[in-house]
Amino acid sequence: MKSIEKFYYNINSGRHVCVGLDTDFNKIPEFLKHSDDPVFEFNKIIIEKLSPFVAAFKLNFAFYEALGQQGFLTLEKTVRIIPENVFTIADAKRGDIGNTSQMYAKSVFDYLKFDSVTVNPYMGEDSISPFLNYNDKLSFVLALTSNPGSKDFEKLTLKDGEFLYQKVINKVKEWNKNKNCGIVFGATNFSELKNSMTDLASLPLLIPGVGAQGGSLNEIVKLMNQVNHNDFIINVSRSVLYKSNGEDFAEAALSEMLSLNEQINNPA
Amino acid sequence: MKSIEKFYYNINSGRHVCVGLDTDFNKIPEFLKHSDDPVFEFNKIIIEKLSPFVAAFKLNFAFYEALGQQGFLTLEKTVRIIPENVFTIADAKRGDIGNTSQMYAKSVFDYLKFDSVTVNPYMGEDSISPFLNYNDKLSFVLALTSNPGSKDFEKLTLKDGEFLYQKVINKVKEWNKNKNCGIVFGATNFSELKNSMTDLASLPLLIPGVGAQGGSLNEIVKLMNQVNHNDFIINVSRSVLYKSNGEDFAEAALSEMLSLNEQINNPA
Repeated sequence: MKSIEKFYYNINSGRHVCVGLDTDFNKIPEFLKHSDDPVFEFNKIIIEKLSPFVAAFKLNFAFYEALGQQGFLTLEKTVRIIPENVFTIADAKRGDIGNTSQMYAKSVFDYLKFDSVTVNPYMGEDSISPFLNYNDKLSFVLALTSNPGSKDFEKLTLKDGEFLYQKVINKVKEWNKNKNCGIVFGATNFSELKNSMTDLASLPLLIPGVGAQGGSLNEIVKLMNQVNHNDFIINVSRSVLYKSNGEDFAEAALSEMLSLNEQINNPA
Repeated sequence: MKSIEKFYYNINSGRHVCVGLDTDFNKIPEFLKHSDDPVFEFNKIIIEKLSPFVAAFKLNFAFYEALGQQGFLTLEKTVRIIPENVFTIADAKRGDIGNTSQMYAKSVFDYLKFDSVTVNPYMGEDSISPFLNYNDKLSFVLALTSNPGSKDFEKLTLKDGEFLYQKVINKVKEWNKNKNCGIVFGATNFSELKNSMTDLASLPLLIPGVGAQGGSLNEIVKLMNQVNHNDFIINVSRSVLYKSNGEDFAEAALSEMLSLNEQINNPA
């Protein structure tokens, strides 16, 4: 199955949860810490347990790079054991001048074989287009993020009255000739998301910020249903991965995960 | 010598050139391609030859990540052989929510032991502050970059009449409590640089975009002299690294490098 087909296959099967493998050595259960590659062991157990129920796994590159070359190897090993039907996201927030973005695209798509990537729009079109030249891969462009700093620049008002993040969304629509652009929009900015749904109509959404960061899953799901926007995935990380710190961590993660699926498919 | 001291030690000794090790396997001389780690061999020879004359080496992470875990190892090996007196820049353009930026900071400062990093401001203060918490390390924030896409967002006019990149510069000045912020400003945007020099007065500048990208070194140097701003480094990559493709590549790079030093210290 091609990467973009895989995205739609999952959401059309009612799977909207993306589990972010922000795996932190310090937070995994003690009994795993003595294996050769503890972060990989943790990921492997989570992937085996949760795969039938998730839309996607998202690997946050920072958590692997923090461990250097060994961490990069763990990242490679992890992405290779994710089952073929599950969509994969390289959460790298890359973006640089054209010839450099080309190299980042090679890294995530050719070498690591991810289905999609997150990219930062600040440097403009030629920093994003090397990713978009991969027709079959999805690139999620940051519009309005879930963190407090989203107010510093993303929410600034431009001379023409638009917010910067709205300008980003409109540019992404221009760049979307291969129908392979998506948008990152943080759940913590719910009213802005609500106001942007018309602009976002045709775009796959990656929504972080529920759980540890405080966004409301129920509000998001009701909004998506209301405007009939089915092309979304909700990212959760810490609230699933570290639900339990004991030998039952994978069971606890699964139970949390199934509860999220239930909340999405049968919202209160 | 501490990282920030090292920056000033070099520029106060009249060394303003940063050589960007954007090393591309496809562009290095044929005779190196059969060694165990061709990119490392190339970097090693360049570093040995050029170190006495450069202010800094900048490693562009994309070129290493494109080769996967092996590339990450090459990056590690390279940064470790850069002589202690030469300033090092992790050109990674990182930036993410706080707990993730924290991990990126750990990677570039604790693990790889770089003196400085480039960071992308789009996500705002909490995406940058984990880097700034390393008191002794310099963080160069992207303001106005050297690529064509810099017009898409960075040059947008805000409601209050400022350009977005000016707002970034002003925010960076607020965040500069530890005097460890710098700015990336592309040489290709010369008139904007000229108009920003008052705002940039106290800030170390990393200036890419001369050479292959078309910015004028002579114009930049005359401007810096005019406004008496000595805290700048000029990045060059392709025009030095690939000056010759033969066995004399290091000699050719050195000769180009010495010519740049001459142009900076005795501008026409």
